Amino acid sequence: MAGKVRVSSYAVSADGFGAGPDQSLETPLGVGGEGMHRWFFPTATFQSMYGAGQGETGVDDDFARRGMAGLGAWILGRNMFAHSRGPWPEDDKWKGWWGEEPPYRCPVFILTHHARPSFEMKGGTVFHFVTEGIEAALERARAAAGDLDIRIGGGAETIRQYLTAGLIDEMHIAVSPVLLGRGEPLWAGLDLLALGYDIRESMAGERATHLVIGRKETV
Amino acid sequence: MAGKVRVSSYAVSADGFGAGPDQSLETPLGVGGEGMHRWFFPTATFQSMYGAGQGETGVDDDFARRGMAGLGAWILGRNMFAHSRGPWPEDDKWKGWWGEEPPYRCPVFILTHHARPSFEMKGGTVFHFVTEGIEAALERARAAAGDLDIRIGGGAETIRQYLTAGLIDEMHIAVSPVLLGRGEPLWAGLDLLALGYDIRESMAGERATHLVIGRKETV
Repeated sequence: MAGKVRVSSYAVSADGFGAGPDQSLETPLGVGGEGMHRWFFPTATFQSMYGAGQGETGVDDDFARRGMAGLGAWILGRNMFAHSRGPWPEDDKWKGWWGEEPPYRCPVFILTHHARPSFEMKGGTVFHFVTEGIEAALERARAAAGDLDIRIGGGAETIRQYLTAGLIDEMHIAVSPVLLGRGEPLWAGLDLLALGYDIRESMAGERATHLVIGRKETV
Repeated sequence: MAGKVRVSSYAVSADGFGAGPDQSLETPLGVGGEGMHRWFFPTATFQSMYGAGQGETGVDDDFARRGMAGLGAWILGRNMFAHSRGPWPEDDKWKGWWGEEPPYRCPVFILTHHARPSFEMKGGTVFHFVTEGIEAALERARAAAGDLDIRIGGGAETIRQYLTAGLIDEMHIAVSPVLLGRGEPLWAGLDLLALGYDIRESMAGERATHLVIGRKETV
């Protein structure tokens, strides 16, 4: 059985933005964007990936852990991988935001208009660059993931494209109690009801409200 | 001391709509819009206003009760008062959605492009029709409310106009775990941070997440 295609632990602000404006090397999540992720940083799941401390357990951590479990491949928009835009420099030193040993530990397919050779990092993460669009990336991710799930990591525009194409099976959104005012909107102009989705689960966490969106049940 | 200008118990869907599409006599909240209000109907506050039962107490009810306390005047967009559009019929029988004894029990100022005489209902509600715009309506509401608060009841477009003009002191939003897909957007294109607002309080209720938005503290 093929794994699910899912979005997990995707944080949006109360006013509906998935990232702040003006992404740069200094502000990879856009201006103010880190505020949306305040629910995630203290979790035991995040701390075990990056941190020094033990981290907290609870509802937020349960969702964070579910988001990392059973994954066989990731798909990321190029802006999730790099702050640069346009063609890759010939001798590109940029290996992503995550240091020598990224937390993915499986194939990661980056959507881009500019080809670049694949490369492998410590811990099993392999970055591939896909120029043929979202369906081609999903096909390659399926082949890599086998029975495991494929996680669409973001950003907002990438998720919107996959939702619009009806290719996402399940989406966990963490709504954070912050305002961004500007940035990358997740919901704007996206008629999720018409696309066949509704809300399956809603749960208050310690620092965010968790929504699980799935395909409407058809009898 | 003048009362606050506030929005209270204003429900939005998870995807940011304050009402569904296609408002009509049969669907005053727009198609699917009643789903956003599911947190409000069971509360003791709502039941004491309209219902037969006792209603439930708890976080949702606390917010609903705060929303009704200390009010001296309301301001409503015309679509909150009527499903009709355009000039009022000369002998208009429409007295609002709320029956003979509306729950306001104070002056209610309706924003409209079409003049209509004021009239009083049982229980002290007086409907006034203001054609000179949002600031004129607020002036009249202030004069009527004295030291009590003024509640901007909605709809989304009316709230957006008052926010854009910087005239709202406090806004309580109940974010409901439903998707609408289409309708009247509350947040779209509104940079609340730039307008000087941020989130003061976030609390999980029984059936909605409550956000209180206020002016940023200035030292």
